[in-house]
Amino acid sequence: MFNYDNQNGWPNKLGHYQSPIDLSSTDSINYDDNLAISSDMYYQLTEEINDGNTIRLLGHGNATIFNRKFTFQQLHFHLPSEHTIDGKTHPLEIHLVHTNEIGQTVVVAIMVNKGNSNPDIQSIINHFNNNVEQPVNISTNQWIPSLAKGFHYLGSLTTPPLTEGVEWLVITNAAITVSESQLQWFHNNFKHNNRKTQPLFERKVELYK
Amino acid sequence: MFNYDNQNGWPNKLGHYQSPIDLSSTDSINYDDNLAISSDMYYQLTEEINDGNTIRLLGHGNATIFNRKFTFQQLHFHLPSEHTIDGKTHPLEIHLVHTNEIGQTVVVAIMVNKGNSNPDIQSIINHFNNNVEQPVNISTNQWIPSLAKGFHYLGSLTTPPLTEGVEWLVITNAAITVSESQLQWFHNNFKHNNRKTQPLFERKVELYK
Repeated sequence: MFNYDNQNGWPNKLGHYQSPIDLSSTDSINYDDNLAISSDMYYQLTEEINDGNTIRLLGHGNATIFNRKFTFQQLHFHLPSEHTIDGKTHPLEIHLVHTNEIGQTVVVAIMVNKGNSNPDIQSIINHFNNNVEQPVNISTNQWIPSLAKGFHYLGSLTTPPLTEGVEWLVITNAAITVSESQLQWFHNNFKHNNRKTQPLFERKVELYK
Repeated sequence: MFNYDNQNGWPNKLGHYQSPIDLSSTDSINYDDNLAISSDMYYQLTEEINDGNTIRLLGHGNATIFNRKFTFQQLHFHLPSEHTIDGKTHPLEIHLVHTNEIGQTVVVAIMVNKGNSNPDIQSIINHFNNNVEQPVNISTNQWIPSLAKGFHYLGSLTTPPLTEGVEWLVITNAAITVSESQLQWFHNNFKHNNRKTQPLFERKVELYK
């Protein structure tokens, strides 16, 4: 029973829905389906920011995610990955941050493996090296496969203010890879910037596979 | 710039998306449309709980809310209303709490005016008075109009633990009213149980009218 005459004394137990988490391929709720994401042909990345921890690119784009319209806000890079899958780290994790009108946030995380060099990421690196501000048009359907697979859960921003209520799609079958030298470039220019994995607590995770 | 070697020192500024709020009919984003909610013909309310502050009814039901499937969890009553509209209070606010698989919460709030007695609420009162545990089947389409109008915004639970990331639909054209004697019954059995309105901060509110 709560005392409505002493509302300042109410416990405000926030902090049980934090990200990143370790994603378990065995303990999730399985769906034989795709992650429900479709987006414009491309996002236009217009501004490139060195925020000290990562490169952050602002721009324009639209996506439909689990049947609701969202607007692209920014993307940035984490090395190594923040989410782990069955305890394993990926060398790179890209976060595409989207919001809607009422302020709901969906982050589409792409878990990237080492392989061929990616030309879009090379453009981003070249612009950064040359300190030039030129738009980069990324074809999201070259980054995100049309049949996206992966995890869906409720968490938080992974950097302060760590706001909760953030919906995560973590894509495990990325359409891109990055080369060893592209990874090396990030390591030379930025320190490791992965927040530690956080407790799952009572949360349920969906796996679309 | 964040220190990834001292993550325990990160600010965790939660508490900027709290509910209830004062809903402004002039400062919201207007849509000439309905609130996107459709539900089963009825929710079956199977368990009636006196939690000290209100009557809480658990049960079964399904709803599609802004294109996603949710499961009904419980409903309860606040007197007077927790949300205010242009500063004005309603005598009663009913909260229908729904969740989905990943733990997202949507509360459908029905702002109820004084008028005719409602038979479903009378059943709930009678069961409570007689201390009997009988299911009450509420026809949600008799509580929620088929063309629901009202507000849509992002907030929190209004009782501890005050969890954020809760999506609110506040219905302003309720299909039901309650009588003076029904209201009086609640006042005789429960103290006022409305949390104070919380600051809006940067949030945007949608108004479907």
